[in-house]
Amino acid sequence: MGTAAGQAEQAPGAPHAVDRLAALLAEDLAAVDALIHQHMTSPVGVIPNLATHLIDAGGKRIRPLITLAAARLLGGGGDGPRKLAAAVEFIHSATLLHDDVVDVSSMRRGKKSANVVWGNSASVLVGDFLFARSFNLMVETGDIQVLDILARAASVIAEGEVMQLAAANDAETSRERYMAIVAAKTAALFAAAARSGAVAAGRPGEEAAALDVYGRELGLAFQLVDDALDYGGLTATMGKNVGDDFREGKVTLPVVFARDAGDEAERVFWRRVMGGERTDDDFHRALSLMKRHNAIGLTLEAAREHAAQAKAALKSLPANAYREALADLPDFVVDRAY
Amino acid sequence: MGTAAGQAEQAPGAPHAVDRLAALLAEDLAAVDALIHQHMTSPVGVIPNLATHLIDAGGKRIRPLITLAAARLLGGGGDGPRKLAAAVEFIHSATLLHDDVVDVSSMRRGKKSANVVWGNSASVLVGDFLFARSFNLMVETGDIQVLDILARAASVIAEGEVMQLAAANDAETSRERYMAIVAAKTAALFAAAARSGAVAAGRPGEEAAALDVYGRELGLAFQLVDDALDYGGLTATMGKNVGDDFREGKVTLPVVFARDAGDEAERVFWRRVMGGERTDDDFHRALSLMKRHNAIGLTLEAAREHAAQAKAALKSLPANAYREALADLPDFVVDRAY
Repeated sequence: MGTAAGQAEQAPGAPHAVDRLAALLAEDLAAVDALIHQHMTSPVGVIPNLATHLIDAGGKRIRPLITLAAARLLGGGGDGPRKLAAAVEFIHSATLLHDDVVDVSSMRRGKKSANVVWGNSASVLVGDFLFARSFNLMVETGDIQVLDILARAASVIAEGEVMQLAAANDAETSRERYMAIVAAKTAALFAAAARSGAVAAGRPGEEAAALDVYGRELGLAFQLVDDALDYGGLTATMGKNVGDDFREGKVTLPVVFARDAGDEAERVFWRRVMGGERTDDDFHRALSLMKRHNAIGLTLEAAREHAAQAKAALKSLPANAYREALADLPDFVVDRAY
Repeated sequence: MGTAAGQAEQAPGAPHAVDRLAALLAEDLAAVDALIHQHMTSPVGVIPNLATHLIDAGGKRIRPLITLAAARLLGGGGDGPRKLAAAVEFIHSATLLHDDVVDVSSMRRGKKSANVVWGNSASVLVGDFLFARSFNLMVETGDIQVLDILARAASVIAEGEVMQLAAANDAETSRERYMAIVAAKTAALFAAAARSGAVAAGRPGEEAAALDVYGRELGLAFQLVDDALDYGGLTATMGKNVGDDFREGKVTLPVVFARDAGDEAERVFWRRVMGGERTDDDFHRALSLMKRHNAIGLTLEAAREHAAQAKAALKSLPANAYREALADLPDFVVDRAY
């Protein structure tokens, strides 16, 4: 699946919620981009080259935007939230580099992935560099509380990645186990991004807890939509990356729904293909079984429920333009799969 | 080369300086080991299994011992230095896991390396976990200054590893470039281990600076000795790991000395074998050329100079049992190659 927003499609019409958020935070976001570029410099040429390849490839900066918006929503100003937002993006970037090595991926954000261009070793080590730099940025804020939040999230993310690795080619992966993986590998960083924004604004109590829920639920929705898009979404549009999860033997929620609703012959099929014996023809059979059991629809329903929880979590927070923009994100995240 | 103390040999006679230091700090060290085990637990079984395989394989804990001794030498007490020492060992362990993936190593501390047992992906991800946990431990100290020191060191280590990767199979690597790699990939963590101990003891000024020099010079000596041992040391003892650097095309200081002192035919040889075309016979020729030019002896002389600098750096510090034990380490580090 990948943890990136790589599969978001540009729909016609009004600007996306992410773009509106980016416009609202244009000045902050420019400062964050400057911080990002400043902190990925190194006399060791491979580092900025590889990092730029990934970071300038057009990610939507959704996680740093959440940090910035959470801080501004609660009246937090100054450089702290910007540094924190850059740190969040660095953690995310380091994760992507290591993910692509682990998944043997060849594409990322519509370009050859860094491991293909520079090799696995460079991707591992530059990932380590970016991860270290994320802590440099957090240290610059001087705020031990945000360090605590993000260091914990970093541990949980790594746990989630290892859980996912252990579950690969395990055809019997349950819905509960899969959701635990998603909560750790994806939602934990969204939650920490939002919570740390609140803490940077000097509001570590109820507001931070509400934003933590917002980020976590949004992250769950985000990943489930990514999983649905990996099978082409509801209209089975064959965009980039479609079929990656299937080829990697990742039992995601669409597979869980189709498998658990299937008859014995279908379960035999899922056991075989998710257990490691897969052909391209099998992918088409998988798609047709998912259609038969509305597995993508059910996955998107689950995503929509998490999106609704995310929106609900904002209700107790001050009503302002930042809250409004954050409230639009969950629908956007889900709508990109239709 | 590897950054581990894996090649230290047990000589007969008096206890080693490391063992004396460990005896002096026995209570602290037991507490550090408890912290280490406590912080590498995870419900995700692969994580403690893999981490235990590495961490319990009998590393000498030289870096955490330096942190503890630096703190105690300056009168620092309490749990802070212990947490810091555990954090330093975690950073080191994460580096080893990623190193072994990058170097395609199969042995570590006399056992199959983790990447061989659990695969490269697990080693990358558990390395990330240990790295994150090192920051959790630092956060627990509540001391932003030590976070600053170790986060900077972590960046520099990653830079050093990337420099080394870029220099692999570059037969023309200069002494200066090689020493820059060693300073970054190995000495930076020794320096940070010592400096952060001083800072944890509430002595961030001149004492911390002196201990930084101590750690850095000791780290340089340590790595040069490791490099000499990778060619069997002065007596060309064919212990474990001998020849790894050669096989990986790493131009270390023994190669630099032999190459730069060689005639044209010898330089052609070095250019070929360090450029990527190597056989086992070539390793024996390399050994004999090193002998002809006393390349191992010169490497150990360089190590001894750094060891002397390390000892000298301690002079301004309070004279006590901890200083004495630290002062014995540099000689021990060099003597293990004879």
